[in-house]
Amino acid sequence: MRISKFFLPLLKETPAEAQIISHRLMLRAGLIRQEAAGIYSWLPLGFRVLKKIEQIIREEMDRAGAIEMLMPTLQLADIWRESGRYDAYGPEMLRIKDRHERELLYGPTNEEMITGIFRAYVKSYKGLPKNLYHMQWKFRDEQRPRFGVMRGREFLMKDAYSFDLTKEDARKSYNRMYVAYLRTFARMGLKTIPMRAETGPIGGDLSHEFIVLADTGESGVFCHKDLLDMPIPPENVDFDGDLEPIVRQRTSLYAATEDVHDQARFEQEVPAEKRLAARGIEVGQIFYFGTKYSEPMKAVVAGPDGKDVAVESGSYGIGVSRLLGAIIEASHDDNGIIWPESVAPFRVGLINIRVGDENCDRVSNEIYAKLTKSGVETLYDDTPESAGKKFSGMDLIGLPWQVVVGPKGVAAGVIELKNRRTGEKVELSPEALMGKFIDGYSAV
Amino acid sequence: MRISKFFLPLLKETPAEAQIISHRLMLRAGLIRQEAAGIYSWLPLGFRVLKKIEQIIREEMDRAGAIEMLMPTLQLADIWRESGRYDAYGPEMLRIKDRHERELLYGPTNEEMITGIFRAYVKSYKGLPKNLYHMQWKFRDEQRPRFGVMRGREFLMKDAYSFDLTKEDARKSYNRMYVAYLRTFARMGLKTIPMRAETGPIGGDLSHEFIVLADTGESGVFCHKDLLDMPIPPENVDFDGDLEPIVRQRTSLYAATEDVHDQARFEQEVPAEKRLAARGIEVGQIFYFGTKYSEPMKAVVAGPDGKDVAVESGSYGIGVSRLLGAIIEASHDDNGIIWPESVAPFRVGLINIRVGDENCDRVSNEIYAKLTKSGVETLYDDTPESAGKKFSGMDLIGLPWQVVVGPKGVAAGVIELKNRRTGEKVELSPEALMGKFIDGYSAV
Repeated sequence: MRISKFFLPLLKETPAEAQIISHRLMLRAGLIRQEAAGIYSWLPLGFRVLKKIEQIIREEMDRAGAIEMLMPTLQLADIWRESGRYDAYGPEMLRIKDRHERELLYGPTNEEMITGIFRAYVKSYKGLPKNLYHMQWKFRDEQRPRFGVMRGREFLMKDAYSFDLTKEDARKSYNRMYVAYLRTFARMGLKTIPMRAETGPIGGDLSHEFIVLADTGESGVFCHKDLLDMPIPPENVDFDGDLEPIVRQRTSLYAATEDVHDQARFEQEVPAEKRLAARGIEVGQIFYFGTKYSEPMKAVVAGPDGKDVAVESGSYGIGVSRLLGAIIEASHDDNGIIWPESVAPFRVGLINIRVGDENCDRVSNEIYAKLTKSGVETLYDDTPESAGKKFSGMDLIGLPWQVVVGPKGVAAGVIELKNRRTGEKVELSPEALMGKFIDGYSAV
Repeated sequence: MRISKFFLPLLKETPAEAQIISHRLMLRAGLIRQEAAGIYSWLPLGFRVLKKIEQIIREEMDRAGAIEMLMPTLQLADIWRESGRYDAYGPEMLRIKDRHERELLYGPTNEEMITGIFRAYVKSYKGLPKNLYHMQWKFRDEQRPRFGVMRGREFLMKDAYSFDLTKEDARKSYNRMYVAYLRTFARMGLKTIPMRAETGPIGGDLSHEFIVLADTGESGVFCHKDLLDMPIPPENVDFDGDLEPIVRQRTSLYAATEDVHDQARFEQEVPAEKRLAARGIEVGQIFYFGTKYSEPMKAVVAGPDGKDVAVESGSYGIGVSRLLGAIIEASHDDNGIIWPESVAPFRVGLINIRVGDENCDRVSNEIYAKLTKSGVETLYDDTPESAGKKFSGMDLIGLPWQVVVGPKGVAAGVIELKNRRTGEKVELSPEALMGKFIDGYSAV
């Protein structure tokens, strides 16, 4: 993409309303724009990251056997009355009346709706297990929306819902999501730790939050340091097999958010030198809640003996839009964002520092054409701005690799390649550059 | 995907509430489920089609130089007051108050918001032209929602917005979208005709609706028959070049919806044998409205002479979710849906008619594994249902190709391949089947 044809509004000044670094950087780097308190537009650069994150989540959910669908944003109040949550859910629920005075609401979550869908179609245990998920915009009318997409009101959530015949099977479904989440966040370059958590308004008696460690995190967390270096389950992990060892390896070590933290237990179970007290950002939470919704909503299936059984369920959320903020909190420096390659809006930023110079233009255009043709996502700064402004802009938006084409280098047959994370710069020929980014590249 | 692991609830009975064939088939084939009047869940099969349609639209919009982003579903009432549409828009606008009594609305379209974004960042004619688009859920509170996704309340729309310095440039932007739309709908297997149309609440003095001809269409249409067989602009059409000849070739022939139809002109301009009076379904509409929003909202840029100029704009919509209905109206038979390959939820439906038979299972599993591994999207009916039920179910959901594995064929070393559209059946070896679906397949 040529910046001259793109829409990339960078801000020089730090917006006054932004209190945390990710919010400041998202505004300055042209990722988002606030439309109302806690409601954002995703500008083209931010949209690209959002789609990358969605796709990683999708691939890992599919791998774990979950099935994607899509529920609407608006729901009937009546189905929330069936579970008893319509009155219980406080002012965070956005209640709406349509032109016929029917009561609707903007879904803050979908346990009721998915239970309604399940019970409409699945009548026998033979239809189990099932795990259905979607990625859809939700609304929670926060009293004080802040921190940009970290605590917005309209936000994108991936929510999955599992249905099983027995508690044992439900535990297996829970474990599948637990393992899928480990893989999902690791693929985004995040170090996350699953922690025992309160179940809150979702209900149930088993829940883990997945926490990214960051100094600016919203809540205190306490855990065994060994959790920081646990291996991530590989791509070919058998989701139909026994995942309990992977889960138990982690759950056997102390890890808890401040809401459920027990200092005495912490000190008893974790040797002093292994104790980590830090701050973290929640990026996902999984719940097992058994029959909390299936019983009042009569989501029953005929068991092997022909008798009706209320299904055992759990729900599994990931804050998709929030993840952009969390990734930036965990990966930035004084100059701007440092995107992990897997979620970067473009892989390469190509800077022509002398637009209008015949040789610089020719070399830049050739590099751009070859990279783009080979599927290497490249953002080409072909604008007439100063070199200094181009460098600082490219650092700010944080693409993993910068390729700099200037008149001196071109005369010497080289261009400069900079690694955004390490700052390391090397000079190399355009041909060697192609070899680095294009698999099996041959100049001939 | 194995049906045993998928979520594909087919209905035997035709739901009473569905008045038109696409609505009936979408419910019966497990594509959608109604959650409230005009509000639907997209079940996994329907979701897959929706994503295919989105992707075709995305590719053609990108090809035409438009830039994707994403605006939120909820908007502040205030920005609609700037254009004067807040009071003008009738009861179809869903108005909402949040916990602080601030006035919000569920966006029925985004002219105001995108104009607000544009004016915040683009200050000079050098930033033009721009065309920004998104695909986001919209809400229009129809008095009488009906016909399934054809006239729903919560619906997915692609809407693009162009910004230009002059009327002439705006016309070029309009032409780019006109040509992109021709390609977009053709790729979905649809025959669409652009027709002069009224501009309605969007405003402006130039507009075309893109109409799919279907007996069940919502409105009467009148056009020159030659429009049915115009060539579609090729993939490499030059969107930076002069598109006026492509547009004029069509606009020089009479074509109008009943709202703007002029019978006298029709009879004068079109020879009797070339007159077509039919019914059609609108799947997209494009508008040029000049400075209708930029003037009241002060979206101005500095022109080459330094003076401020209100930008010239247009908007360009496609009914993404509605397209599923339109495609089904245009492509079905008595047995069910017939998906064009480009939007089919799976390309191949594999039917094992004797699950449990060792040879049938082995051959089916091999075919499934090979097709899937090669990226041929295959839905494998591995359930214990009767052959008759499997055949009718596969016809109903309308995948382009059916592969039937049965004991007699397997004994003879052949399987059956059926073309859903023509009904044509051939027997061939599993190896020959692979050769048909997998590019460069070699058995060795």
